[in-house]
Amino acid sequence: MTTVIPHKLLYELTNAVLERCDQLALCSDVTGEVTRLFCSPAMREAHEKVAGWMKNAGLRTNVDPLGNLIGRYERSSPQNQSVALASNPPRICIGSHLDSVRNAGRYDGVLGVLIGIAVVEAIATQRLELNGAIDVIGFSEEEGVRYSLPYLGSMAVAGKFDPVLFDRIDAEGISMKTALETFGVNPENYLDAKLNVKDYIAYLEAHIEQGPVLEALQQSVGVVESIVGQSRLWLAAEGIAGHAGTLPMRMRRDALAAASDCVLAIEDYAHNVDGLVATVGGFHVSPNATNVVPGHVRFSIDIRHSHDKDRLVAVEEILSLIDEIATNRGINISVIDRSDFEAVPMDAKLVEDLTWCCKAALQSNHDLISTSPDLNQSDDAEQDSGHHIKEKPLASDVYVLSSGAGHDAAVMASVMPSVMLFLHSPGGISHNPLESVRPQDVSIAIDAMCRFVLKHLGRQ
Amino acid sequence: MTTVIPHKLLYELTNAVLERCDQLALCSDVTGEVTRLFCSPAMREAHEKVAGWMKNAGLRTNVDPLGNLIGRYERSSPQNQSVALASNPPRICIGSHLDSVRNAGRYDGVLGVLIGIAVVEAIATQRLELNGAIDVIGFSEEEGVRYSLPYLGSMAVAGKFDPVLFDRIDAEGISMKTALETFGVNPENYLDAKLNVKDYIAYLEAHIEQGPVLEALQQSVGVVESIVGQSRLWLAAEGIAGHAGTLPMRMRRDALAAASDCVLAIEDYAHNVDGLVATVGGFHVSPNATNVVPGHVRFSIDIRHSHDKDRLVAVEEILSLIDEIATNRGINISVIDRSDFEAVPMDAKLVEDLTWCCKAALQSNHDLISTSPDLNQSDDAEQDSGHHIKEKPLASDVYVLSSGAGHDAAVMASVMPSVMLFLHSPGGISHNPLESVRPQDVSIAIDAMCRFVLKHLGRQ
Repeated sequence: MTTVIPHKLLYELTNAVLERCDQLALCSDVTGEVTRLFCSPAMREAHEKVAGWMKNAGLRTNVDPLGNLIGRYERSSPQNQSVALASNPPRICIGSHLDSVRNAGRYDGVLGVLIGIAVVEAIATQRLELNGAIDVIGFSEEEGVRYSLPYLGSMAVAGKFDPVLFDRIDAEGISMKTALETFGVNPENYLDAKLNVKDYIAYLEAHIEQGPVLEALQQSVGVVESIVGQSRLWLAAEGIAGHAGTLPMRMRRDALAAASDCVLAIEDYAHNVDGLVATVGGFHVSPNATNVVPGHVRFSIDIRHSHDKDRLVAVEEILSLIDEIATNRGINISVIDRSDFEAVPMDAKLVEDLTWCCKAALQSNHDLISTSPDLNQSDDAEQDSGHHIKEKPLASDVYVLSSGAGHDAAVMASVMPSVMLFLHSPGGISHNPLESVRPQDVSIAIDAMCRFVLKHLGRQ
Repeated sequence: MTTVIPHKLLYELTNAVLERCDQLALCSDVTGEVTRLFCSPAMREAHEKVAGWMKNAGLRTNVDPLGNLIGRYERSSPQNQSVALASNPPRICIGSHLDSVRNAGRYDGVLGVLIGIAVVEAIATQRLELNGAIDVIGFSEEEGVRYSLPYLGSMAVAGKFDPVLFDRIDAEGISMKTALETFGVNPENYLDAKLNVKDYIAYLEAHIEQGPVLEALQQSVGVVESIVGQSRLWLAAEGIAGHAGTLPMRMRRDALAAASDCVLAIEDYAHNVDGLVATVGGFHVSPNATNVVPGHVRFSIDIRHSHDKDRLVAVEEILSLIDEIATNRGINISVIDRSDFEAVPMDAKLVEDLTWCCKAALQSNHDLISTSPDLNQSDDAEQDSGHHIKEKPLASDVYVLSSGAGHDAAVMASVMPSVMLFLHSPGGISHNPLESVRPQDVSIAIDAMCRFVLKHLGRQ
């Protein structure tokens, strides 16, 4: 397998990415944790750092009217990046988000942005010439924390942003418009944030999986073929409250027992449908007293599948199982709220391309780990960094999977061919300070994404 | 069947009892509802009314150091009730409580006190001579609302009151001692509240059932043979929280699904053990978010049976079912709190006596309803009162049952032979403004209790 990034360089880039994740973790709105909200002071600090790394890699940077940090690498080598172009070259956009949930880990979002920069560094350092250009975008908002609405950054970049949202206020009463102005951008120019999408041949996003599938499969990386669709329901089970001592079992209309029946029916159903997840996560019992038979339970069902038809069938069949439970128990159970979100398929050709690139990267990295003492033996400086490539061997199969969570790619896919690369999430842990990533998986991601760019924009 | 209370008198006594319940409902600490707490201004008002009715019935009244209202009817006719006695006559104590839960109904507690007064009125009006005396007690505190501890009144009367409780404070920071002093009694004399228990041949308490058993059996009254024992447990199910979208079904450790399994196992178990009730009433899910697989559930189990051995076996078998669920699901479920309260059997001979008296009362009342136009046709005055005896016929079987709830009789049974009479609770509704009672059931209770007194203290 051809090497696209020399082993030593890949090793340096991997360590740089991980060290930058550590540095960005210090940009937090709350001391002692990682909490970086849309347009916050911590986000400004993060922009300064990321923009610095972008510039060093040869990207020209600017911040758009929605606070997205855009780095542009205009084909060929850094030396001629500012040369005016006669016609628009094809472009690849590599992106992910710079904001975080409250008390987050240090990799969700930022890792994808930093891997994008590393890919450009790999190309620029080797002075590899391209037939096109690369954007690296750090989206301003994906998690939906500050304004209770996700994807603000990518919606603007995709031209899907609704300016009515500028009037939304955060928990402190600050409007989105004011927040953007305070951040130093002019939200009135929000239409300028839209990319000239016809120039783009691909949107590519690397992200930690945030789930345990790749770990279970002992895989370093996976390729996302679809971001699942979702149905969210709230149901109310109405029984009759009664005295826990005086009401005989056979005379009860216990809403909790009925809801428990539903929980198990939902679990059992989902276990038997491939690719389906169904979760009862919200669950409120009333009156919730030890000596009262529960009269009322309100509970949520979250149903996801990569195929919308399968999801909708699942919703109907689950509701029919619930109806049966309600009838058998003489209890009323009704749907009090429902919303449905369609699945977003990734571009099939790009999924195939990225899968091929991952396989090549795994093969190449496997050789690297087997032969290079540099990457198996850490020196003192490496030990200090805390990031090492030690585990081996790496599997060369690549698993194509669905994303159970939403990502900026779901928005970008509506305007350009898109694909995502997932990195192994140790323990499946995310949205948690214990979130982690393995160095060898970062190496493979950089290598695979560099191959992807060269496959589409390379001159050979 | 011999008549012990002429039909017209029984009808008047029944209406008096129900009208007095209505009047006491107006003695409330909260306007617009029935909320009458220990030593409150509403309780003082209630005392004035009840003491007046007691005096009219021929009872001497006093308020003991714990705020219990005691009425004493010293054998024979009202004319000689104040004659000093050479030796202590046998006594029967009829009691129930005058306090209420918050936003209560109008019958829980007070009905038993007022039926006690009606029994004395029936005897006094007819100048029936007795070989002993009757106490009618309105206990000051049974519900445990103000000081989070029930049975304060009966504990003092039974000589079981611990003066350390005087230092307890209520929600407003008022100590029990201060509350009693403000009410106008001297708590330091609390030992004087204790009855000379060896004089008493029976404690008798009438109470609404607060459950649906008598209604289901179409019974007017029932005799309580036991106040059930109770085990109260809190359990914690510890799964692993996870993302509702990214965590495949087969990799979940869902604490809610495990707890649901427990709820159904408990329900199923209790359904198959005669006389057992088991309730999961307290139920707290964490993190309780629609898109997170629940990681933690804390839930209560309330297990009651009239036989302690059966209850303890049930607890062990239920815990073993739960262990099995935990093992099968790879989830830790542990008991984090447990308390056990023994069953209190009523006196077997008194249960037999009261059952006989209820049968006689039913038979007598059945004849009454069948023959007397007075009780089937209400005149205008009766319509105004809102209380009528209309439904017929009454069953003459008497059901002997357990009380699933605690009562003052549970305390009194520790110092004297005790028995309870339950009145049909329409809809099983109690601790609720919709609580009600049927006039014919009150008639039967008065008649049966009058027979009980005459059986034990009558001169014939």
